[in-house]
Order: sequence, then C-alpha cells, then structure tokens
Amino acid sequence: MKSETRKLWGGRFSKPTDSLAHQFGSSLHFDARLFDEDIAGSVAWAHGLVSANVLSEDEAVAIIAGLEQVRLEFMSDSFEAHPEDEDIHSAVERRLTEIVGPLGGKLHTGRSRNDQVATDFRLWTMRACDLLLQHLAGLQRALLASAETDLTVAMPGYTHMQRAQPITWGHWALSHLWPLTRDSDRFAHARRSASVLPLGAAALAGTAFSVDRHAIAVELCFESVCENSVDAVSDRDFAVDFLYAAAVVGVHLSQLSQQLILFSSAEFGFIVLDEAYATGSSLMPQKKNPDVLELTRGKSGRLIGNLTGLLVTLKGLSSAYDRDLQEDKEPVFDAFDVLSNALPLVAGIIRTIELRPERMAAQIDPGMMATDLADYLVMRGVPFREAHAIVGKVVRMSEERGVGIADLAPEDLHIVSDQFGDDVWQVFDIDASLARRAAVGGTATDELRRQLEAARRKST
Amino acid sequence: MKSETRKLWGGRFSKPTDSLAHQFGSSLHFDARLFDEDIAGSVAWAHGLVSANVLSEDEAVAIIAGLEQVRLEFMSDSFEAHPEDEDIHSAVERRLTEIVGPLGGKLHTGRSRNDQVATDFRLWTMRACDLLLQHLAGLQRALLASAETDLTVAMPGYTHMQRAQPITWGHWALSHLWPLTRDSDRFAHARRSASVLPLGAAALAGTAFSVDRHAIAVELCFESVCENSVDAVSDRDFAVDFLYAAAVVGVHLSQLSQQLILFSSAEFGFIVLDEAYATGSSLMPQKKNPDVLELTRGKSGRLIGNLTGLLVTLKGLSSAYDRDLQEDKEPVFDAFDVLSNALPLVAGIIRTIELRPERMAAQIDPGMMATDLADYLVMRGVPFREAHAIVGKVVRMSEERGVGIADLAPEDLHIVSDQFGDDVWQVFDIDASLARRAAVGGTATDELRRQLEAARRKST
Amino acid sequence: MKSETRKLWGGRFSKPTDSLAHQFGSSLHFDARLFDEDIAGSVAWAHGLVSANVLSEDEAVAIIAGLEQVRLEFMSDSFEAHPEDEDIHSAVERRLTEIVGPLGGKLHTGRSRNDQVATDFRLWTMRACDLLLQHLAGLQRALLASAETDLTVAMPGYTHMQRAQPITWGHWALSHLWPLTRDSDRFAHARRSASVLPLGAAALAGTAFSVDRHAIAVELCFESVCENSVDAVSDRDFAVDFLYAAAVVGVHLSQLSQQLILFSSAEFGFIVLDEAYATGSSLMPQKKNPDVLELTRGKSGRLIGNLTGLLVTLKGLSSAYDRDLQEDKEPVFDAFDVLSNALPLVAGIIRTIELRPERMAAQIDPGMMATDLADYLVMRGVPFREAHAIVGKVVRMSEERGVGIADLAPEDLHIVSDQFGDDVWQVFDIDASLARRAAVGGTATDELRRQLEAARRKST
Amino acid sequence: MKSETRKLWGGRFSKPTDSLAHQFGSSLHFDARLFDEDIAGSVAWAHGLVSANVLSEDEAVAIIAGLEQVRLEFMSDSFEAHPEDEDIHSAVERRLTEIVGPLGGKLHTGRSRNDQVATDFRLWTMRACDLLLQHLAGLQRALLASAETDLTVAMPGYTHMQRAQPITWGHWALSHLWPLTRDSDRFAHARRSASVLPLGAAALAGTAFSVDRHAIAVELCFESVCENSVDAVSDRDFAVDFLYAAAVVGVHLSQLSQQLILFSSAEFGFIVLDEAYATGSSLMPQKKNPDVLELTRGKSGRLIGNLTGLLVTLKGLSSAYDRDLQEDKEPVFDAFDVLSNALPLVAGIIRTIELRPERMAAQIDPGMMATDLADYLVMRGVPFREAHAIVGKVVRMSEERGVGIADLAPEDLHIVSDQFGDDVWQVFDIDASLARRAAVGGTATDELRRQLEAARRKST
Repeated sequence: MKSETRKLWGGRFSKPTDSLAHQFGSSLHFDARLFDEDIAGSVAWAHGLVSANVLSEDEAVAIIAGLEQVRLEFMSDSFEAHPEDEDIHSAVERRLTEIVGPLGGKLHTGRSRNDQVATDFRLWTMRACDLLLQHLAGLQRALLASAETDLTVAMPGYTHMQRAQPITWGHWALSHLWPLTRDSDRFAHARRSASVLPLGAAALAGTAFSVDRHAIAVELCFESVCENSVDAVSDRDFAVDFLYAAAVVGVHLSQLSQQLILFSSAEFGFIVLDEAYATGSSLMPQKKNPDVLELTRGKSGRLIGNLTGLLVTLKGLSSAYDRDLQEDKEPVFDAFDVLSNALPLVAGIIRTIELRPERMAAQIDPGMMATDLADYLVMRGVPFREAHAIVGKVVRMSEERGVGIADLAPEDLHIVSDQFGDDVWQVFDIDASLARRAAVGGTATDELRRQLEAARRKST
Repeated sequence: MKSETRKLWGGRFSKPTDSLAHQFGSSLHFDARLFDEDIAGSVAWAHGLVSANVLSEDEAVAIIAGLEQVRLEFMSDSFEAHPEDEDIHSAVERRLTEIVGPLGGKLHTGRSRNDQVATDFRLWTMRACDLLLQHLAGLQRALLASAETDLTVAMPGYTHMQRAQPITWGHWALSHLWPLTRDSDRFAHARRSASVLPLGAAALAGTAFSVDRHAIAVELCFESVCENSVDAVSDRDFAVDFLYAAAVVGVHLSQLSQQLILFSSAEFGFIVLDEAYATGSSLMPQKKNPDVLELTRGKSGRLIGNLTGLLVTLKGLSSAYDRDLQEDKEPVFDAFDVLSNALPLVAGIIRTIELRPERMAAQIDPGMMATDLADYLVMRGVPFREAHAIVGKVVRMSEERGVGIADLAPEDLHIVSDQFGDDVWQVFDIDASLARRAAVGGTATDELRRQLEAARRKST
Repeated sequence: MKSETRKLWGGRFSKPTDSLAHQFGSSLHFDARLFDEDIAGSVAWAHGLVSANVLSEDEAVAIIAGLEQVRLEFMSDSFEAHPEDEDIHSAVERRLTEIVGPLGGKLHTGRSRNDQVATDFRLWTMRACDLLLQHLAGLQRALLASAETDLTVAMPGYTHMQRAQPITWGHWALSHLWPLTRDSDRFAHARRSASVLPLGAAALAGTAFSVDRHAIAVELCFESVCENSVDAVSDRDFAVDFLYAAAVVGVHLSQLSQQLILFSSAEFGFIVLDEAYATGSSLMPQKKNPDVLELTRGKSGRLIGNLTGLLVTLKGLSSAYDRDLQEDKEPVFDAFDVLSNALPLVAGIIRTIELRPERMAAQIDPGMMATDLADYLVMRGVPFREAHAIVGKVVRMSEERGVGIADLAPEDLHIVSDQFGDDVWQVFDIDASLARRAAVGGTATDELRRQLEAARRKST
Repeated sequence: MKSETRKLWGGRFSKPTDSLAHQFGSSLHFDARLFDEDIAGSVAWAHGLVSANVLSEDEAVAIIAGLEQVRLEFMSDSFEAHPEDEDIHSAVERRLTEIVGPLGGKLHTGRSRNDQVATDFRLWTMRACDLLLQHLAGLQRALLASAETDLTVAMPGYTHMQRAQPITWGHWALSHLWPLTRDSDRFAHARRSASVLPLGAAALAGTAFSVDRHAIAVELCFESVCENSVDAVSDRDFAVDFLYAAAVVGVHLSQLSQQLILFSSAEFGFIVLDEAYATGSSLMPQKKNPDVLELTRGKSGRLIGNLTGLLVTLKGLSSAYDRDLQEDKEPVFDAFDVLSNALPLVAGIIRTIELRPERMAAQIDPGMMATDLADYLVMRGVPFREAHAIVGKVVRMSEERGVGIADLAPEDLHIVSDQFGDDVWQVFDIDASLARRAAVGGTATDELRRQLEAARRKST
C-alpha cells in the first residue's frame, strides 16, 4: 500500500515516511481528545463554505451528517483509528470521506491544518477554563464554609514558622481563599486569550475563499476574530496563559497543602484529616498519611514544568507555523487533568476537616502578645521603637528566668520600664488581642464577618 | 558597638548576628531602589497615624519633613548607608531618627516590615508596569509605521522555514504587533494585581490602631485594599504576574529577533540593519553582526529563568510571611531592566531597518503558488483534496524535470489533469495571489489597510 | 466489598478511601512499566529473606515461581489490574497472593514500598541509561560517517548567523559530535548515580531483619549499597541527573536541528532531506517540511520542563519520604521516550542527507577571507589590530563601490595601505584559507583527519 | 571623537553604535570579574605567539609586563574603565596598548574574543568549582561532627511529615551529608567539563598561526584541549554543568533548611538555633526567626531559575558563536555567590545548633513501634501482611479507646490476635527498636559508627 494515497499531502512525494518518523510525528494518541472541537469547527467551516459558494447546501448537509456520524463514533468509543492517521484532523477527514465519498475532500477547501488545529485547541481551552473556574469556585466555597463555621476559633498565626500573633481559623481560611479569587481572574484572562477565532487564516496568508469569519466566530462562540492570519496560526499565548494560571494555582495549592500537612502532624495537631483522604503505609501499621495533600504539593512541580516547557518550545521560533507548535497540547491537557482532580480533592479535604480548637488555643503562648505589650506602651506615649526595645528586654528576662512573659510579676516589668502599669495583665487576653485588630483585614470578629461577606461576593 | 542597639529588633537578643549572616540577609544593595516608594509609603502611614491619634499633627509634620530630607539624600546620591542597615526600611528609619530624634521611633507604630515592603514593592511594580506599557507602545508604533510604509511590499511567507505563500512586509510586521498588544494586556493585568494596598496588615494579624486604610490607598493611588491581612503579607502574585508578562514579551521578542537575524543574513538578504545597532568582530574585519537582536533573543532565557525562580521560591511556603519572600525583588528588577532596554532598542532597529524589496520579490518562486493552483481547480469543481493531489503531481513533475511549475507547458499540465485550462498562467501572478486573500486577516491590500487601522486603534 | 481488606495498609482505617483520591494517588497506569524491575527486586528480596531466616527455601521457591508467573502475565499483556491496585508493587503482591496464597504476604517482611520503589526505579533508570548511551553512539556514528565522507567539502562557517570564515562539512559535522560525547558522559554519570541499592532501608530506619544487602546488590547488578537508610528512601538525585542529561541532549539536538532546518531552506539550500523524514502540507501541495527536526527542536522544551518540574517537586521536602516523590517517574519515562525516538531519527536524517557542495561553495564569498587578508598583513609585520583596521577600510571601500573585496584592484588596496603586495590575490583562495588553519582543532585537512580519529576513539 | 577608532572592530563601520545599544551589549560591569583569568590567558597567548614567531621574545616580555601592570591596576581597584570598553577583553587590550603602544595591537593576532572569553570563563569556573568543593567539604565536616557528637540521640523519624519510626540525630545528620557527597561529585564533573582549552580556536575555524595549544593548556592548567574549533567557541556545557550542580545543592539545602526550620519551631522544639544566625522582627519583640535558613531555602528558586535560564538561552542557537552566549556568565556568577555564602552559613548553623534530646525523646510515641510489633508477630511465624493487618486493628482499638498502643493490656491485644505473648511489652523499648535495625544503613549504634566512618572517608 502506498502511503501517499493515504496521507493528506502525499502527491509530491515519491517515497513513504519512515515509520518511526511517522510515529514520532503522530499526535492522534493525545489530540483525539479534541474530536468534539474538531467536528464543531468543521461543521462551522462547512457553513462558511456554503456562504462562499464552494459547497452547495445539499453538499453541506451531507458533509455535516457525515461529521455527526464521526462524532458519535468517537463518543461511543467505536471510532477506529487507521495507521496512516496523523492527527485528529486527518483521522476525521479520512473517516468522513469513507462515509460520504469524494465529497469529503471538499471540506478542507480554503483552510489548513494550521488554522484548524488552532481553532480546535482554542475551543478546548475555553471549555477547560470554564470547568476549572467551576472547580476553583468549589474550593472557594469550601473555604468560605469552613471560615464561616469556625470564624472566631483562635489559633496561632505564624511568620517564619515561628509563633507570631494570634489569629483565627476563619482568618486563616480566608487568607487561602483570596489567592484563589486571583486564580479565577487568571483563568478568565486565559479564556479571553483563547476566545479569538483563527479559522480562515489558512496556512498563514488567509483563505482565498470569501468565507464570513465573523459568522463562524458567532457560531462557535468565539468573542472575536484573529485580525492577522500570520499571527493567527503562530499565536499560542492562550496556551501559555492557561499554563501560567495553572502553575500559580499549583503554587497556591502547594502552600495550602503544606500548611494542612503541618497542621495535621502530631507536633501541631490542629486538625484531623478525614480517613477518606488519607492513606496508610505498606510497612508501618500505625501510619495515616496526608497523601492527597502531598501529591497536590508535589504536582506544583509538573505544573511549573509544563509552563517552562512550552515557553522554551516557543522561544526563537522562526516562521509563521513551525511543527514545534505540536508540543503545545500535552502540557495543557496535563495541567487541566492535574487541577480538575486536585481542586475538588482539596475542597473535599477542607469540607471534611476536623478542627481541634483546644490544641490551637493551647499553643497560643503569651509571648505571642509581645506586640500587644509594646502597643500598650505606645498607648502610654512611648515611641514604638523604644517600646519594642523594652519588650525585647522583657522577653529576654522571661527566657533567662524560664517563665512566660505573662508570668513575670509587675515588679519585674518595672525593672525594665516604669511605664508598665497594674493593668498590664489585660494585654495577655487572647480575645482582647484579636479584638484590637479591627482595621480592614484584621482579626476582630466584626471585621472578619465583613471579610467573609466580601469574599463571598468575590467568589460567586 | 553593640549591634543590638542598632537593629530594629535587637532587644531580646544577647548576641550579635554573625557578620556573614548579616551580609547574606541584607537587601539594601538592591532594595535601595525602593527608596522613593518607601518614603511615599511612610508619609502616607504618618498621615494614617494622625488619623489614629498616634501622632499629633506637629509630630507628623516633623516626621514628614525628615522623610523628605532622606528622600533628597537618596535622590542626590548623598545618602550614606550604615553597616547595620538591613534593608531600605531600616536604613530610612535609622536616618530619620538621626534627623528628628526619638520621634522617628513612632513611625513604625502599628506596622511591620512585612506590610511595609509589600507596599513599597507594589508601588514600584505599578510604576514599572506603566513604563513598560509605554515601551511596548513605542515598539508597536515602530511596527505600525513600518507596516504602513511598506504595507504591500511582497515577500515570501514561511512555514516550517520553507517558502509557503507570498505575503507582504506590512502583513508580516503586523503579525509581530498583535502579540505585543496581548503583552500590554498582561502588563495591565499585572498592574491591577499590584494595585491593592497591604499597608495596615502589620506582621500578619492586622494593625491594632484605627488607621483608615482606604484613605492611605487613595493617597498612594492604589485601586483597592487587601481584604485579608494574612494574605496581604504573603501575596506575591503581582510579582509573578509581572515576571510572567515579561517572560512572554521575552518569547515574542526572541521570535521577532530570530526572524530579523535570518532576514539580515546573506542567504536571505531581505533587510539591512542600521550600523547603529550592529557590531563588528575583534578578529574578522568584514563582519557586521546583529548583536542587539541576538542579545535580545538570548535574554528570553533570563526572563524565563526569573519567572521559574520566583515560582520555585514561592512553592510550599508554610506561613504568612517567610523570609524566602525577600527573593522576590531581584528577578523583578532584572526583568524590568532587560525589557526597558530591549524594547526601545528593537523599536529603534525597526525604525531604521532598510528593506530590500527586490530580494524579497526574487525569492517568491512560482512553487509558492501551488495552493493557488489547487484553488484554481476547486473553482472548476474539483474537490480540494483531489486538487491537492493533482498539484502535488505537478510539483513532482516539475522537480523531476528541473523546471519551475510556472514553466510547465499547458500540455504537460494536461497530462496530470484535464481540468487545467489555458488561463492557468494567471495563477502565477504574485499580485493576484495576494489579492485573492481578501477575507479578514488576509493579504489583500484593502484588508491590510483595515488591519492597519485595527492595529492602530488597539495600540494607542 | 470493603476496601480495607484489599489495600496493603487498611487495618487501622475504618473508612474507605474517597474514589477520586484513590484514582489521584494511583500510579499503576504509569508505574506498570516497572513490572520487570519490581519482580527482579522481589526475587532478590526473597533470597535475602532466606538468608535472614524469614523464608524457608521452599517458601522462597514457591514465591519466586509465583513472581515469575506474574512476570509472564505482564510480558504477555494478560495481567489484569484490579481496581484496588494502587501501584505496581501492590498489584504484584496482590496477584502473587492470589497465586501462592497467604505465603505471598511474607514477601513484604522487612521492606517498605519506600525502598522497594526506589530500587525498581533505579534499576529501570540504569537500563534506560544503557539504551540511551547506545542511541547516542548511533548518532555519533552517523555524524562520524558523514564527516568522513565529506570531510573536506568547503562550506561557509557562520557566527552571529553571518558568514564568517570557510570551514568544511566534516568540521561542522564533528562540531556536533563532540557535544554528544559529553552527553554520553552525563548519562554514564546518571547511571552511576542510580546504581546504588536502597533495598533494605525499609520505610526509613533500616530493615529489622538480617538481610545481606551487599548480596542483593550483586544479584541485581548494583555497584554499591546506599549507606544511610534515610537517604536511601529520599534520594532522587539519580532521577534528576537523568533528566539533566536528557535536557542537555535536548538542547544539543535543538541546535543541530535548527542548523539542519536552515541548511535545508530554499535560501541556504545546502542539503536535501530524504523524503522519508519530511512531510507535506494539508493545504500547500508544494511543501516539503522538516517536521522531524522541528519536533526534535520543539521537544527540548518538554525535556527542560521535565527537569525543572522534578527540581521543583523536590524543593523543600520535609521528611525522609514524602508522597510528592511519586512525581519522579513520569518525567523520567517521558524524557526517555522522547530521546529514544529522537536520537535514532536524527541519526537516520544524518545518514540520508544529500549534500549540495556546489551551493555551499557558491556561498563562500571573498569577504569571508577578510581575516586571511589581515593575517597577510600581520605576516608582513603589521600589528594585528592595525591590520584589522586596514582591512575594515577595505571592506568599507568594497561596499561603497559595490564590488567584492577580491575584485578590488591592487591600486585600490594601495590607497588604504601600502603593505598590500602583488601576491595579495592568493589570500582569496578557499583551499589555501582552509589549509592555513592547521593548529589543533582547525580546518586543515590533515588536522581534520586527526580530529576524525580522535572523535572515533571517543565515540566507541 | 569617532567611536570606530576606539572599538576593536570599527574599520568597516561608518557610523557609531547607538549609545543604548552599546550599553545593552556592554558586559564590563560583570565580566570585569574575569580580569585575572583574562590576563593569565593573554600571557599564555603571548607565549604561544612567540612559539609561532609572531612575537619576538622582547615583544612578549614587554607585552607581559604591560599585562601585569593592568592586572595590578585591577587588583588595587585603580583600573579606570573607558566608556568605549565593551568587555573585559577590550578593556585590557585598550589599557595594554596605552601602556606599551601599538605593540599591544599584536597580542590579538590569531585569536578572537570567541575563544578568548571561553578560555577566561572556563578558568574562572574551574576555580569556582574548587572553592565550592571546599565549602561543600566544610558543611560535610560540620554534619559529621554533629553526627559524631550526638550519634545515638533518639529522635522521631518522619515520613509524610507523620511520625514513623525512631531514628537518631546522627542518623538524620548523616542522611543530609550523603547528598552533599553527590554534590561534590557533580562539581568535580563540572570542573572536568570546564578544564578543556578553547584558546586557539579563534573565531570558529581555528587559528592560522602555528601556536602550540597543548603547551598553552599546560601553562593554564587545563587537562586537555578542545578538539574541534567550532565546538570550542560554542560549547557552554561546562557552565550548564556548573549551574546544574548548584541547583541540586540548592534543592538539598532547601530540604535541610526546611527540616531545621521545623525542628526549631515551637511545635517541634528539637533544636535551638544560635542567635548569631537568627534575626528578630521589626514589630514583634518576641520573635526569633530562622532567616538564614529561610533565605537559603528561598534561594533554591534563583539557582533553579539560573539553570533554566541558561538552558533556554542555549536552545536552538544556530551558528558557531551567537551573541546570546554572553548571557552565560551572570547566572554562573550569581550561583557561585549564593552558594559560597549559603554553604558556610549552614555549616555555621550546624556547628552551633543546640539539641534538646529530651524534647525529641518525648515525641517518640509508642505508636511509632507499630512496625516492631508487626515484626514481633512475624518472628512468631505470622506472614507479614497478616501481622500488619493485626497491628492495624490494634492501632484502631487504641485510637478508639484513647490510649497509646503500649498501654493496651495483653488481654486487649489477645482480642485482636492470640499470637501476642506476655513478652510483647519489650517491643516498645526505644533503644531495642533502634538496635534491631542493624543491617547496613540502619539505626543500630555499631552500624551508625560504621556509617560515620564511611561518610568521613567519602567527605575528605
């Protein structure tokens, strides 16, 4: 069998492709995922060819019926790939032609795989953004619910992994929600990037047939039309935008996971993970491991790697369309798969987490009120920098004596500064400390309620 | 001299910092660049402390006068750093206190370096985005001007680095303009990301003083206020957004540079670079090298590396503020410096480029009209796929005979297909080929004029 | 059916794993690729357990027979995965136990999946290095053969993509061989990194049974034994070493591909690619595209992305074994697959390339002998820097007059410098120019012969 | 003043370089760091030119004396850069010529900046590897000393951040030493990569003068000579090898830092960092932050970014020398600077760390002996998998009853399995558990002593 009779482009070739080269270049094993978009794009193109008088209405009806049959074969997993199929586009055209005969050969009039694949991939990316936006919203809702339920549960706040100041669970949970709202913005941006129609750009110079590209855009729900046919076939910004948005989600999830992993360690003991999201050890019978969170954290690596990889691939390309661009799809598919699993899983973990408020409270040691102690002095007129130094000496005294700063006697405090009054003990009340931070963004209960509402509005 | 008397935080420490550790942690050598933003932020904070009744108006006036003196010292390069200065924030406060006395120690009331540095850096990033947006607009204008001047100059269009179809210089130049308009969108997005005020978040839990954060935001021209104090001190999304926008610009410039480098090679010979943007060889006297373009292409590496680096730094961070975040500024400064040089340089190159239209025209060989030849058959009712195969055979025949396809006699063409008529020679006219691509995005002159207008509107 | 009866670790759990979490954590779809290594490792471990008196010889024989049956099932593609199989290790143990009964449950004594997976993966990596070393040698041989055949065919040498000095095809081909010899060194290093046995480290603290780890190492052909059980289960340096070696090969192939792509463009026209390694266009019938080379160039992106990704995953890990490490295998498998296709394909391209020496020679313009002209003056006692300036003026004169420098009359040259003699025309002989570069590494024929021999020795 | 009289290559140019372009391309601000290597290389080249009869001995003496004067000017910081200096090479030649007159113009005979810069940079990299190898050895010694001092101090070993099995401090410390020995191997490899002499390759085609390159290699302490002049000027593998070695060190240090940060948190409390390596908070007076460790962890980002960046820059380069290669040095310098600070700092931290053995011991809960309990059953003939399930049930029982597994009565254990004997309590002895892991790599004291010796041998 001569390969040139099979390939879309064999006419000028006198020799078949090397079989390893064919396999190396074949993309059907991953771009079959685009079958639905490929067929949608071809249906729209058939309409376009009618308006350009290339197809009669009857021909278009026959072609579209054939395409719909191919679509059903894919949906029912009964599509049979042929060894000569190079990609989803050639596979669909080959099958279409088997169904409708030589008429199928009219469908590719005035288009190229260059604009066809860009169209398919953009359609897919638009749908992928929509799905991930839903998953992001799901995780946002889980964090909102958790924040609402335990809005005022006090816990240690950390900086530098050292206990810093008391905050609350709700405050903490919302601090992980806001990054996700920014992630939603990034995916919305990626969707807009994708939502520009390349079809009609043909190989690079534009189609020679009077197809109405705006009508095709409307049919396929693109927001606009690529204005320059050369740019249309080379632009992969939308794919990089998608991978970037995914990489940042990966970083955010890695931070959230890291903190939950620590919180579920024996040493912290702030939370208990539901068994449905933990696994055991093949060797150590007592282990209950936060594997889902670890995998989520670990997968930030591949998400960043996917982004880096595509940027490298695009670097220095030298013509309107280079075959290097075929490398655009696998990282995007992979990033989508990672996040469409990780986001609902982390949401499930948040929804089923069991808090241990008593452990959290127990770990708010009075040293964490040192800033409050300095603020106390400020209220009495001591410049902050001096107050800070005074409290620093108090901390050192408490360390040297091996007692907490709340347990130093007023007389001891007086040794360091005569600004300490008899009411200084009030400083060490956790609730009062939380309540003092009433400015926008702070830990005071009313302010947290406001933040919760703001977050709810932003998330939905 | 005891170091603890110098540092902002020495009170609780009984021992000085290791000198290498001090140097390792010191950031003044790069964050001095933030002096203007640091002082602007402190002036606004002084206003805030007045509203919170921490400072009297007289105290604020004195502090602000002191800050303005420090600003002038930086602007006139007369600021003297002190070995104990850890960063721009401590340097400014130290100097302020030298000027205004202990009163200076009141300025840090209710804030932390955590919210302070985030504020400074966001302000700087907002300004950097504005400047880069101007540079992007400058390059867009250069491309627009070049496209307009030589809108219809025919040149070979390439795919896979092989001659594909004729396009025009204007079409090509605009194909490099559109990516830059998307880059502008990305920098506008990064600017919005940055334009959220963290000041008032203090260390992580919020300030304990009733400062009006919205008023500070207005004073500093932030669009909004961080809603969650924990997120406020940990969020570096704006820096990553900036680095991402820069990395994509880097990729776009690498592609543009690569093509210009090729076009200026002896083999292509499409353009002559102005000597002002080329350099010679220390050894080979005849050389004229496109160094600026090569460096621009090469610097896409560091731009991608900067992005990767910060994403890695952020991965898995475990508390509201970790010192790792100090690594955020150098890559952003570097990316800004690269682009604020590369963009105007590439614009200068575009503005001074000398085209060689006769070389371009000479390299449009008739084989590039093969698609037109197939379209000719389509017009006569041959299904495109069949037409493609026929023309493929024509190409093979021409190669075997060693003549161009335009030089095959009608009789020869008839051997391959009887659909070729006597008018087939018209297919090989370059101008007609360009004119046939009149759909949106294509090479036809009127359409190019429309694209030029659309690009002009988008660029300004 | 209760999942805890199926999992290796269910005893302490009262609840099944969430199904999405199970799927998210399952690795069988990619680590089934390790079946052969897993079984080899288990056979060796069974021997170890005999020496530790945990298994009797009869038990070991039965277990090993069972393992060999499982191996055959995998080899014949008849292994049936069970929904509860989490990974290749649990799948093999589950199937083994089905075959040999509860005795199968003895095999995991004293080991953990932590040391087991590290062992399997290291074995696989050792084999992968061996295979890639063969592929690298194959490409080296192809370059050697091409260099030998066309050792002295003159061609333009480029720097900055500008014609610089004449070299030869053999010189050029060898310049791409040497990087591959360094790549072989890197894979040899990666192999040594992998060739250290972790088995016996158990979960992290070492096995509690007196297994002879050195004997196991010998049986499995490891060069040595991990000296520290904690390091044994966390060390993934070998995987990163592999990915790094692969990424550098990717960069080298991208450079080689880039140059071949340019050389096969119409503008250069130095080579003709065999049709077996080129493809056509679905739209443009005349196109013959170097897709294999473009894909190879493009895949440098994913190879760099794979490396970056695993480095990110490893960053900041906090205990001996974190589940994040499961992310180690897919990038390594992917890098192997890319290179085990790309290397033989590029070798095939090199072997079938058709040179066009006349085109190469035609593009060596006399300006490329400008350095020779300066050297001519040096031979006559002019300091090189002065000679360089003189020749620079000659070049400028030739450009202004629109003639090549070889076509300037001796009188013209005398205007610039009286050092030019009547014999200056000899400078412009290409063969003489090549022959002058006789120092080690240069273009002179004898020296190229020597280089060829040196390269042959290094490659085999 | 005409720039062409100043530049090394101005002769053929009629127009000065654009000033921004000059600044963009200038590398003196960073490559001045290579002055010592540049002068060493030039001295050796002068010797070579004597052997090639280009310089007389007297001329060489004068040139070398001039070069030594330039060297002293750099060493004493009195070298004055000139605005026209493009890089260290042109700066040195310009200054040399000021000192020795036109004779200085003979030095560049037969070489190019292409081979010159590669030589300088390789020399520098060789020295940098030597220095980092010393720093790595320093950190290895610190870990060795810590391991030796506290070899048998019991502490919890973690997997998945969950308590797994008891190990010892010495075991843990050595687990961080072994990766550093592999890092030393990588830097030794990078040094060998660098130690190949490019000088004599000239621009790309080899020098036309009969210079003895092997003698130059001996003089400059290179191990060998680049065999191919084209490869010689384009090869940057040594720089990538260096950056790769540095990136992996960065990952290792990030893991070590991460663990020390956790160990020094209040929740773990295993160690106390020396105040010399900690810093305080500008706001919170009680804070003592592990900043040096955090910065070290954070800097793994820039180290990975540096590697990624250079790989990207090298991707797809198209001729023997492209100016993109100028981007090779800054990442290497940066990586060196990071590590030559971080390594001694982490060593200082390890040397001054204060252990809290009682806290470590207190956190070894009996649940960590669950594997020992299963092994106990194995010793009594229960297949491990069954033993694992039995102990899993014991763990569940202990959780349900809210008591530790060591506190369950023998009767309770009998409910789960009648294999538990009266001697089962012995299982819960920490020292016995440690001692049981006596195989190579394990926690038993004698084995740890052996590991210590092995590590000592490998480190020195």
